[in-house]
Amino acid sequence: MSVQIVLGSKSDMKVAEKAIEVLKELGVKYKVNIASAHRTPDLVEKIVAESEADVFIAIAGLSAALPGVIAARTTKPVIGVPVSGAVNLDSILSVVQMPPGIPVAGVGLDRGENAALLAAQILALKDERVAKAILQYRQKLRDKVMQDSKEVEC
Amino acid sequence: MSVQIVLGSKSDMKVAEKAIEVLKELGVKYKVNIASAHRTPDLVEKIVAESEADVFIAIAGLSAALPGVIAARTTKPVIGVPVSGAVNLDSILSVVQMPPGIPVAGVGLDRGENAALLAAQILALKDERVAKAILQYRQKLRDKVMQDSKEVEC
Amino acid sequence: MSVQIVLGSKSDMKVAEKAIEVLKELGVKYKVNIASAHRTPDLVEKIVAESEADVFIAIAGLSAALPGVIAARTTKPVIGVPVSGAVNLDSILSVVQMPPGIPVAGVGLDRGENAALLAAQILALKDERVAKAILQYRQKLRDKVMQDSKEVEC
Amino acid sequence: MSVQIVLGSKSDMKVAEKAIEVLKELGVKYKVNIASAHRTPDLVEKIVAESEADVFIAIAGLSAALPGVIAARTTKPVIGVPVSGAVNLDSILSVVQMPPGIPVAGVGLDRGENAALLAAQILALKDERVAKAILQYRQKLRDKVMQDSKEVEC
Amino acid sequence: MSVQIVLGSKSDMKVAEKAIEVLKELGVKYKVNIASAHRTPDLVEKIVAESEADVFIAIAGLSAALPGVIAARTTKPVIGVPVSGAVNLDSILSVVQMPPGIPVAGVGLDRGENAALLAAQILALKDERVAKAILQYRQKLRDKVMQDSKEVEC
Amino acid sequence: MSVQIVLGSKSDMKVAEKAIEVLKELGVKYKVNIASAHRTPDLVEKIVAESEADVFIAIAGLSAALPGVIAARTTKPVIGVPVSGAVNLDSILSVVQMPPGIPVAGVGLDRGENAALLAAQILALKDERVAKAILQYRQKLRDKVMQDSKEVEC
Amino acid sequence: MSVQIVLGSKSDMKVAEKAIEVLKELGVKYKVNIASAHRTPDLVEKIVAESEADVFIAIAGLSAALPGVIAARTTKPVIGVPVSGAVNLDSILSVVQMPPGIPVAGVGLDRGENAALLAAQILALKDERVAKAILQYRQKLRDKVMQDSKEVEC
Amino acid sequence: MSVQIVLGSKSDMKVAEKAIEVLKELGVKYKVNIASAHRTPDLVEKIVAESEADVFIAIAGLSAALPGVIAARTTKPVIGVPVSGAVNLDSILSVVQMPPGIPVAGVGLDRGENAALLAAQILALKDERVAKAILQYRQKLRDKVMQDSKEVEC
Repeated sequence: MSVQIVLGSKSDMKVAEKAIEVLKELGVKYKVNIASAHRTPDLVEKIVAESEADVFIAIAGLSAALPGVIAARTTKPVIGVPVSGAVNLDSILSVVQMPPGIPVAGVGLDRGENAALLAAQILALKDERVAKAILQYRQKLRDKVMQDSKEVEC
Repeated sequence: MSVQIVLGSKSDMKVAEKAIEVLKELGVKYKVNIASAHRTPDLVEKIVAESEADVFIAIAGLSAALPGVIAARTTKPVIGVPVSGAVNLDSILSVVQMPPGIPVAGVGLDRGENAALLAAQILALKDERVAKAILQYRQKLRDKVMQDSKEVEC
Repeated sequence: MSVQIVLGSKSDMKVAEKAIEVLKELGVKYKVNIASAHRTPDLVEKIVAESEADVFIAIAGLSAALPGVIAARTTKPVIGVPVSGAVNLDSILSVVQMPPGIPVAGVGLDRGENAALLAAQILALKDERVAKAILQYRQKLRDKVMQDSKEVEC
Repeated sequence: MSVQIVLGSKSDMKVAEKAIEVLKELGVKYKVNIASAHRTPDLVEKIVAESEADVFIAIAGLSAALPGVIAARTTKPVIGVPVSGAVNLDSILSVVQMPPGIPVAGVGLDRGENAALLAAQILALKDERVAKAILQYRQKLRDKVMQDSKEVEC
Repeated sequence: MSVQIVLGSKSDMKVAEKAIEVLKELGVKYKVNIASAHRTPDLVEKIVAESEADVFIAIAGLSAALPGVIAARTTKPVIGVPVSGAVNLDSILSVVQMPPGIPVAGVGLDRGENAALLAAQILALKDERVAKAILQYRQKLRDKVMQDSKEVEC
Repeated sequence: MSVQIVLGSKSDMKVAEKAIEVLKELGVKYKVNIASAHRTPDLVEKIVAESEADVFIAIAGLSAALPGVIAARTTKPVIGVPVSGAVNLDSILSVVQMPPGIPVAGVGLDRGENAALLAAQILALKDERVAKAILQYRQKLRDKVMQDSKEVEC
Repeated sequence: MSVQIVLGSKSDMKVAEKAIEVLKELGVKYKVNIASAHRTPDLVEKIVAESEADVFIAIAGLSAALPGVIAARTTKPVIGVPVSGAVNLDSILSVVQMPPGIPVAGVGLDRGENAALLAAQILALKDERVAKAILQYRQKLRDKVMQDSKEVEC
Repeated sequence: MSVQIVLGSKSDMKVAEKAIEVLKELGVKYKVNIASAHRTPDLVEKIVAESEADVFIAIAGLSAALPGVIAARTTKPVIGVPVSGAVNLDSILSVVQMPPGIPVAGVGLDRGENAALLAAQILALKDERVAKAILQYRQKLRDKVMQDSKEVEC
């Protein structure tokens, strides 16, 4: 089982890296490609058609059409990550406000790590090993909060 | 495999019904409960703890905390549906802008049907029967567009 | 010379009709199709590939990907019309905030008539007859304002 | 009488410090904890259940669920402080737009000092000493404005 | 102990009535006045100066200055209720975004009932009878959700 | 004839300085005070009551109540200047969205120079000398654009 | 002394009527014209050039260029009234966010009555009779609030 | 055939340069002028009246009236480029939300390059050489994405 990450542009790589780091930590296989819905629509189509991934993560800014365009070409779950810019509401609303029939799972602005976690949570329904890795990840999050709290309590 | 739908309030039922109709059509089992993150936090916790569902759909308006509160209590995928009101950006941003570590899969405003489809797409990774039903659903969508297009072409 | 109008959904027909009325009045040939960027991406592609139109008008609401998806498949000018809904900023920003390299000519919310006029203004660069019709249209607009002004002056 | 401050994350500490400084100046006792509504819901619950505070101050950014989640677990007054980020309307609306029945007292973006003052104003209804300290604080504010005004008048 | 409700205009009465109903149910004494920060600033000042209330509820729309103007004249807690209109962000932001030193406790748009509950929660710190009434109110809210949930479960 | 400038806080001085520079250039007399609608309401009242100015310029950020509060205390024209911050829509809407009966003349964000020009345009109705100075100022603006245009034409 | 009202379109007449009613009540002379900045720019220019008015009121919706276009052609004070529509922020921001050098006095959305009052306040600097009429108008506003307050007090 | 670029202010030059670079690369003739709709309306009129350009590109920030004012004076296609600032929605909405009858072709915030491409796409309907240059430009865009994708794949 694996995840296909698609970036709309090289400048979105900073958000993709957050996703990659989490997928590595959870032991989830992934592939990364850059393919623009607007500049290289055929490449997007080709990546989707040839992919054996179970989940897609599409990362894009501005009028972020990429997640929706991928969702139009697959019935696998597609997670959309809006990327920050001068307006921000543009990419958030473009990712989330999909029409009836073709859902995209929108996560927060620049939230690559959450896209990865959501992808892993989906794969975990079939893969017990990933499920365990997620529980450990959550525990680590909790431990971090506990430790942070101790520091400020003093 | 099944889906647990949770509504923040009875007034969100009109959005839930769109989800229920799709789940029925796709042959996906589901349960529906009303449980408010703010008025009945224990009930939300109890539903999540006792649920055997593989995916959660949380439907809420205003400062829509419900999807996030459920996501805090499970590592199963949680789909959040913002419900429309006087402001709209409140529920959309509350659902989508989750902090690092606890993702919610946000769909569009009042988009219960897309939450159901996304849930089904997730379950379809394990359930071939649901996968087929989704393909049929998509085909129906396409046929509808084709037919609509024919009408306006005349 | 002609214009290809594409609607994302049958519910956008009220906006398309404003465009059609203007194109008729200006004597510009046009075709109308419904084709969703998300539900029928192949149909969109097919329409663009087979079209002999000089200008495209794409009308869509929500995360209005249609104008951009058409622009990705042609180097003919593409005019995007955002359609109103519960949020409005979603379709406006989706149409306008295109990435570098693939422009869409965004007009105002529900402004089908302006999309038609803009298309005609483009065609008028080659077609003297359309140029004249536009001048007459403008004169009519002016006369209407003059007459309205007279009524309120009394 | 005392105030319990809860931060959603260590990065909110800069806002909490504004609150702490004011509480110290007014002679109001307080406790500070970090506890995330999404990462450590049990910790939030535990803090609320064990707290003997009369007023809660909850500081959080993004889809700031923390104030609401605390308000769901206590009938003591809960003051919510939205923390600034890339969007800002997300945390402001999440804090303010609570559903009927469970109020949160929202103060301005990053306005930790106002949360502290509001908490003190509430406690001052029972504690004459705090009431006096607030009057002195106000007088100091006024004196500062008067002095600033003198400087620019010259 | 009592609550002073001030409305910016007679048209805000529909929001005030939600507050009044809750205060009555909780057995909290209250007074209601209409006084505009912009049209009758002296009246606002007079009401605040003469009031023996422990908490103020100020209800206003548009550039809702009333809560802040009252807060400027008292050190008692002031709860601000933004009233809905054509823009909504105007009254929400006017109520919430107070400058440092003069807090207003902002509740949600048109959320008169929450203003009343927040006022009661503040008074309950001194008045055991009100504290009990709030617990009963909360229980009623919970029972309502439980019953609603039962209905949709069938 | 003269203009009274009132700043909500010392930090608004950068915007006031733009106004002062223009008033000096146009030969308009002015006074500057800092007085906060929320921290020093009596000082605001006193300044307005004692002022012999013909026009007021009120400069404030956040929930910018100052222009409205001054307008409530005088029937002289009041110009409001919203000051930029983390949200911006807060001060713009607070200044502009005044209720019926008490107008404020809102100018753009941080637009101190335009407030001064507007004040001068008002005074120019009575003062021929100011009227001439404004015409010269406009001419200078035009000359600057012409010269800038020449530079880029090369 | 007089006021020139210009409407961008006949549909803005409902807002103009609020202005006319107030000007009549205050005994201020006025003229009304419809002239669109976009459809009849020459008419706008002609009205401004020929007008002997001391103050202009420009009423327009959408990308409301009319107030700015008038301000570009006169050094008399120009009051802009944004008209409501599907977006509202478009006309508010278009009216208020003028560039340095050419101010427009923006009033609230659909606030024709406030435009008239502001115009009268400006004229009152020279016309004692108008100044008195404004004081009476204010007193009437106050009396109305007092009376409204009495009704709800019962 | 040629393009007339008009900037509202010298500070918009950074956006104009993106347009100029693209027009040069595509071999499209152009002229550049600075002319403010508000500060030099006669200059704008003169430029439009004397221009032999086939397409106009108007670049402006804030309440960006320039594109609409040019569109009011020509029936040639006018492309509007909103320029970024403290608010951004102001210039985007001012450019896009044109009234019926006078269209502007809005492109994205600061998107000078897209304005140039759109202008070139319009001219390409008559000029085969430009049409070819655009195809090459698109191919270069695609090659860049392909190469970027290869780098991240490694």
